[in-house]
Amino acid sequence: MNSADAIDLPCDPALAAVPVCRISNSGSTLQPDLLAVEEPLEVRLSHEVDGRRVRVPVSITMRTPGHDDELAVGFLYTEGIVVAREQVAGVRACGGRNVVRVDLTAGVGVDLARLERHFYTSSSCGVCGKASLEAVQVCARHRLAEGRPVVKGEVIHRLPEILRASQTVFERTGGLHAAALFNTKGELLCLREDVGRHNALDKLIGAQFLAGRTPLSDNVLLVSGRVSFELVQKAAVAGIPILAAVGAPSSLAVSLARKHGLTVIGFVRPDRFNLYTGNERIRLQPR
Amino acid sequence: MNSADAIDLPCDPALAAVPVCRISNSGSTLQPDLLAVEEPLEVRLSHEVDGRRVRVPVSITMRTPGHDDELAVGFLYTEGIVVAREQVAGVRACGGRNVVRVDLTAGVGVDLARLERHFYTSSSCGVCGKASLEAVQVCARHRLAEGRPVVKGEVIHRLPEILRASQTVFERTGGLHAAALFNTKGELLCLREDVGRHNALDKLIGAQFLAGRTPLSDNVLLVSGRVSFELVQKAAVAGIPILAAVGAPSSLAVSLARKHGLTVIGFVRPDRFNLYTGNERIRLQPR
Repeated sequence: MNSADAIDLPCDPALAAVPVCRISNSGSTLQPDLLAVEEPLEVRLSHEVDGRRVRVPVSITMRTPGHDDELAVGFLYTEGIVVAREQVAGVRACGGRNVVRVDLTAGVGVDLARLERHFYTSSSCGVCGKASLEAVQVCARHRLAEGRPVVKGEVIHRLPEILRASQTVFERTGGLHAAALFNTKGELLCLREDVGRHNALDKLIGAQFLAGRTPLSDNVLLVSGRVSFELVQKAAVAGIPILAAVGAPSSLAVSLARKHGLTVIGFVRPDRFNLYTGNERIRLQPR
Repeated sequence: MNSADAIDLPCDPALAAVPVCRISNSGSTLQPDLLAVEEPLEVRLSHEVDGRRVRVPVSITMRTPGHDDELAVGFLYTEGIVVAREQVAGVRACGGRNVVRVDLTAGVGVDLARLERHFYTSSSCGVCGKASLEAVQVCARHRLAEGRPVVKGEVIHRLPEILRASQTVFERTGGLHAAALFNTKGELLCLREDVGRHNALDKLIGAQFLAGRTPLSDNVLLVSGRVSFELVQKAAVAGIPILAAVGAPSSLAVSLARKHGLTVIGFVRPDRFNLYTGNERIRLQPR
């Protein structure tokens, strides 16, 4: 499968130009439009078994090209297949731009049962491939510190505007989810976009993992849409204590966040937000 | 796993009430809030092999409870596992509210290779579980009629407002995707909501399939968000000729729609929309 029949492909692999007929009150015009690219990515894992290299496909997901190495590694990390930076020897594209291979360091074992369970898992939903209802939960390795860090409410209010100002592909296509990492002062540290909300988060977490910065115990995560169970799970595995969103959380997202002691904030706007759990990490200004 | 620690569970299984701290310029208030429920659903298939009944798990997906029978059947139909109404003898909940079993009519064969491929597939992303990049495409059985039906542009403009007025759970939670089926005059025929966009569409298509109304050759589909490759694929399998959306399509969605001859419309508003492909099905009013 190819991307849309591009008429003048931009340099950014996340963007495709296609002809579009724009209809409005003043009539119709035919002109090029930019769309977010969606293409399948296959993630393969290369590891040692009894002294020889074995390569196995791990997942296939529909994603927006770009930062594929981070996506692959972030996925393996948030699914519990790798747990430390030194376990990853390298990440490389192979066989075109839609396959990426993660090479594990020699001697690093892979839990084959876990791998088996995740063989068919996609980061686009993060749940598929779990053979039973119990298997949908991945264990978080890092215990979140109680009541820390503390972030001012006024910092939370500002985050969506900073995200939007930096979301370059979305601005041009209107078609992407975003995940952004901030410090407790509300300074943007990392931003990733993707057609899949879980992919955007996997890319962001993968970037931090590759840079040796996980667990992300002093950070605030903002997502552009709604908060699903999966996003809370990925945040918890990466040790992120505060998850804020422009949209609403699901019931299970709040339930899982409570279990992990993670703060969940929804409907963040310049003048309001909703605190669902972990309220003690947010300091409100006196009235 | 249970749903969020409900404080006063509403009768609607799609809704959960949780305490929330609302922060605004005028201070903070603690009060109950309604969230969209997200829970795992396991779909099992019961079919005959050599004269005896065999039951196999087919998929597990995070969904909003309600219309689970339609979700299960819609998923099996849009994934090509069942193709005609008479192949489904019955659908029943089994083992609590998060497992549903689809009983195939005696004598109806199942393509075990296809089933194998889909064993771990979730309707939440629709792509997971395909063992290779080629396997992500499902064949559409119905050929869409060229240039038919024809729908007036003024009908398209009105659809989102009709959808919003009928989206009861979203209105109360802000947390659901919707899929709505219209006739060519813009009259609403069916509406389904879910935390997963693919689930909302599977529920809608499953309802029509169970009522014996597929293929949906004279209908217009409106989705509340963006258009992914998966949504186009499901629409094509169900024979839907026109897919309109409040959000943007991805590059691959437009590409696949062109291949199937399906009309894709994005950014539908009262005063404008974008026609990406299949323009001949939309009749614009003279200026």
